[in-house]
Amino acid sequence: MSSKNRLIYLPLGGAGEIGMNAYVYGYGPKGKERYILVDLGVTFPDMDSTPGVDLIYADIDWLVQRADRLEAIFITHGHEDHIGALPLGWPKLKVPIYTRTFTGNLAMHKMEDRGLDPLQVRVVQPWPETIKAGPFTVSFLPVSHSIPESSALVIDSPAGRVVHTGDFKLDESPVVGEPFQPDLWAEVAGDGIQALVCDSTNVFSPAAGRSEATVGPAIEQLIKQSSGMMVATTFASNVARVRTLAMAGQAAGRSIVLLGRAMRRMVEAAVESGVLTDFPTTIPAEDATNVPRENLMLLVTGSQGERRAASAQLARGKYMGLTMKEGDTFLFSSKTIPGNEKGVGHIVNAFSEMGVHVVDDGADLYHVSGHANRPDLERVHKIMKPKIVVPMHGEHRHLRKHRDLAQGNGFASVIAPNGTMVDLTGDAPQIVEHIEAGRTYLDGKVQIGAFDGIVRDRIRMALNGLLVINLIMDENDEPLGEPWAEIKGLPEVGLSKVPLSELLENDLAQLMNRTDDKVLMDDDKLEEALRRRTRQVAQEELGRKPEVMVVISRLMA
Amino acid sequence: MSSKNRLIYLPLGGAGEIGMNAYVYGYGPKGKERYILVDLGVTFPDMDSTPGVDLIYADIDWLVQRADRLEAIFITHGHEDHIGALPLGWPKLKVPIYTRTFTGNLAMHKMEDRGLDPLQVRVVQPWPETIKAGPFTVSFLPVSHSIPESSALVIDSPAGRVVHTGDFKLDESPVVGEPFQPDLWAEVAGDGIQALVCDSTNVFSPAAGRSEATVGPAIEQLIKQSSGMMVATTFASNVARVRTLAMAGQAAGRSIVLLGRAMRRMVEAAVESGVLTDFPTTIPAEDATNVPRENLMLLVTGSQGERRAASAQLARGKYMGLTMKEGDTFLFSSKTIPGNEKGVGHIVNAFSEMGVHVVDDGADLYHVSGHANRPDLERVHKIMKPKIVVPMHGEHRHLRKHRDLAQGNGFASVIAPNGTMVDLTGDAPQIVEHIEAGRTYLDGKVQIGAFDGIVRDRIRMALNGLLVINLIMDENDEPLGEPWAEIKGLPEVGLSKVPLSELLENDLAQLMNRTDDKVLMDDDKLEEALRRRTRQVAQEELGRKPEVMVVISRLMA
Repeated sequence: MSSKNRLIYLPLGGAGEIGMNAYVYGYGPKGKERYILVDLGVTFPDMDSTPGVDLIYADIDWLVQRADRLEAIFITHGHEDHIGALPLGWPKLKVPIYTRTFTGNLAMHKMEDRGLDPLQVRVVQPWPETIKAGPFTVSFLPVSHSIPESSALVIDSPAGRVVHTGDFKLDESPVVGEPFQPDLWAEVAGDGIQALVCDSTNVFSPAAGRSEATVGPAIEQLIKQSSGMMVATTFASNVARVRTLAMAGQAAGRSIVLLGRAMRRMVEAAVESGVLTDFPTTIPAEDATNVPRENLMLLVTGSQGERRAASAQLARGKYMGLTMKEGDTFLFSSKTIPGNEKGVGHIVNAFSEMGVHVVDDGADLYHVSGHANRPDLERVHKIMKPKIVVPMHGEHRHLRKHRDLAQGNGFASVIAPNGTMVDLTGDAPQIVEHIEAGRTYLDGKVQIGAFDGIVRDRIRMALNGLLVINLIMDENDEPLGEPWAEIKGLPEVGLSKVPLSELLENDLAQLMNRTDDKVLMDDDKLEEALRRRTRQVAQEELGRKPEVMVVISRLMA
Repeated sequence: MSSKNRLIYLPLGGAGEIGMNAYVYGYGPKGKERYILVDLGVTFPDMDSTPGVDLIYADIDWLVQRADRLEAIFITHGHEDHIGALPLGWPKLKVPIYTRTFTGNLAMHKMEDRGLDPLQVRVVQPWPETIKAGPFTVSFLPVSHSIPESSALVIDSPAGRVVHTGDFKLDESPVVGEPFQPDLWAEVAGDGIQALVCDSTNVFSPAAGRSEATVGPAIEQLIKQSSGMMVATTFASNVARVRTLAMAGQAAGRSIVLLGRAMRRMVEAAVESGVLTDFPTTIPAEDATNVPRENLMLLVTGSQGERRAASAQLARGKYMGLTMKEGDTFLFSSKTIPGNEKGVGHIVNAFSEMGVHVVDDGADLYHVSGHANRPDLERVHKIMKPKIVVPMHGEHRHLRKHRDLAQGNGFASVIAPNGTMVDLTGDAPQIVEHIEAGRTYLDGKVQIGAFDGIVRDRIRMALNGLLVINLIMDENDEPLGEPWAEIKGLPEVGLSKVPLSELLENDLAQLMNRTDDKVLMDDDKLEEALRRRTRQVAQEELGRKPEVMVVISRLMA
């Protein structure tokens, strides 16, 4: 039994959340499988749960412990949630990285930025070209999405063919990049698909998705109606949209300006890698101030309200010498990702105060999604006719809905969130193991754990404020002077109107007087006594219990 | 000129945001106006900008300084953003509070909860009954909204009639409370309206609003299809919805359980004040465990994903002995307020993991808004035919859109965000003054300012972590031992793998050795030197610059 070969699927990230994708496939006898890793992405921190953290990515310890059996990493496309952790995880895995050209351009820059060898990234051609990786033969199948050269992976093993969709939509006229080709997908499905591991992001969207080509005319119309400066934002990586916006601006006789580092870099990468051949001429921001504003169109970063992006800087005042004013138009050619509503709202209101006409995607005229909607998913299920559908790239509710959809149409399916190892060998998916999956943080330059208390302490200081109690004990274990208090993130004066530090110092001095010698000699007990009393005083004075740090210095004889 | 009487409008909160409503009206010669205050509400803190804060409300200092000229406070309805700061602000204003019965019930409880006299709240009957308040005669005009007995205020002054809508929608069958009565509004408008000060919340909603009565049948349908336990959440204060849900549950033969303090309290207040006369019998949570789950319907608090509400507790496991499981249904009969998406998402996913069928308002079947949509606003403008429309209750973008709408239909209008004093006396609104308007925080039991640095310090500790550097200086201004470091919210070990505290202590000891006596004797300079070096070391080791607190203890001779 144990020598029987099996084909396994193990999501380490991306299944049970939208973000930090990392999927392991394995083939071989149990415990001796050879592996490949698909994608290694990040997710972004927030103030609620991860203040101060720079990036969040999947805990890949399980795979690191088995790195000797890992053959390669395949990156489906260049979005941060698929590629962002590559330079963070790679040094522990040290296997070749395969991507297509545009993604490779981004990946190489990422490796270089962290001082790693960009030549670990190997650029390959799409289907029907294949890469051999241990027991697997892998091919990049072009799909349409909101970034160029996105690919599904066709993963062949002795146990059959798996198609891992990556992020995709069904777009037969995607403006930039390859259209959805039903015939090509049918060709891939020709010899039978063992499992379709499939994007679930838009499973709750009931109508078929619209093509990227539909937004151009609406944007052209809008620009024609705009009399002042035109400013538009979208994800910089949505090169098709950036091109659509630029072409519409050009058609209206406007000079195009790219604002924000990501915007310039993405267009560069797209031109360098040959996916973008006809982008309008742009002018540098410095020259834009000489152009009448009704002849200008700015394409700016910051569609999600990011504080440091170009849109937010324009909302606060000036960016690269440019300012917005009454009569200008600002277009969100984007959807606000849940959680970013407040940041986006701040920008909209700031522009409103300036008299800027803000146009958002409320009417779905100026934006289309990059993911397959429910009817699109069903269409793919039916083209591919897999034995098994495994929903991925979704929160638990998306995975559930997608599983129900697949089962309803007669496919075997399973909900497999991060850490769920699924045997795909038979007619139905079998959960064979649960491994500990989690997240890890890049904090400044240091990797920290989600549960090591660092972030918890930050959250507590933010919610509760901090009191630092200092005390010096002399050589005879007697207090030298009185304890004193330092306050951070708390009112200096509470209900009694006496300064809190004064109250605390008096109160703790009295506490010291009545504390017996055994406690005075024991740092832990003394700390605890001071902490408890400090919290009581704060509760009475402020109506809250702060974090308390007690620092006892003992002078040595 | 200065002795000429004028009618002024001054929003202190609620205009430029949705929340913390507080509007001042004045009449009299400039600088001698007599005032009334309409509403005194709160807004809720968030981790991004106000961690640890309990409540946010309008800074009413301007009015407090003129409290001798304030006649009364009028509360339009019982939502927290209109009533929540009443017991916080009242002690500085000390004037009678006028409300209708149901609102009064809530207001009295709020006063009592803070140890204030509930009899300051005076319950009055609606239009045509009036209250005299200095130069003003005020009447409560029933409007429909998502809480019982909401009212517009008809404010008569020698300079004409102002109608302050409060929050409202046009609902001719609101289930609980008074329907919209076009005739009554026309009657109020009969003698001419000087100014309509009008809710702007839903000005971006292009279709006319739907009636509360439309959600009942859909909910009944859903309950009939549900085989397990049925759980539904909505705002507790939406008594009409709570009733609709309960009636639908009862019709399906289910026992109704109210879960969560606010849910029970609101139903109680509604029954006590006579607005709710036919609420189904409920059973206590303790008895519910004896009822088969397919015969149960729970109405629970926490439609916005609040961590301590009943819905979140059920999502985490057990609440009052009740648990959810496979086959149960959870209905959000509510809309997620922007900013709460993540909290709601957590709950939905937790239920998904349990196998619970979650139904949200995605299809707009199970929820309707309590605010007037754009066509409804236009309808009211046209019924009231005011000289002036002043948009309120909205972010800046809402005020702008509403002003444009009013002007487009031929009404004089103005954008007047918080702090903008508008003279409403003439044919067109005139901005006559800008006063400093802001927000103030209730933090535990203490009122703190938005700009006094307390919250800023909390945010910094959360984003940057904290290092406390301790140093004892002896009687001769020489260091006694070495400086030492305490770490909170930072990794203990950085890039060099040597404990950070050790590194810092060695480094700072060396710094002390090379520091000259002048600096050693000067606390400020010594602190600054230690702080700067500490941040450098942290930057090298951790790749981030923490908050640094330096504590120098000097022993006295």
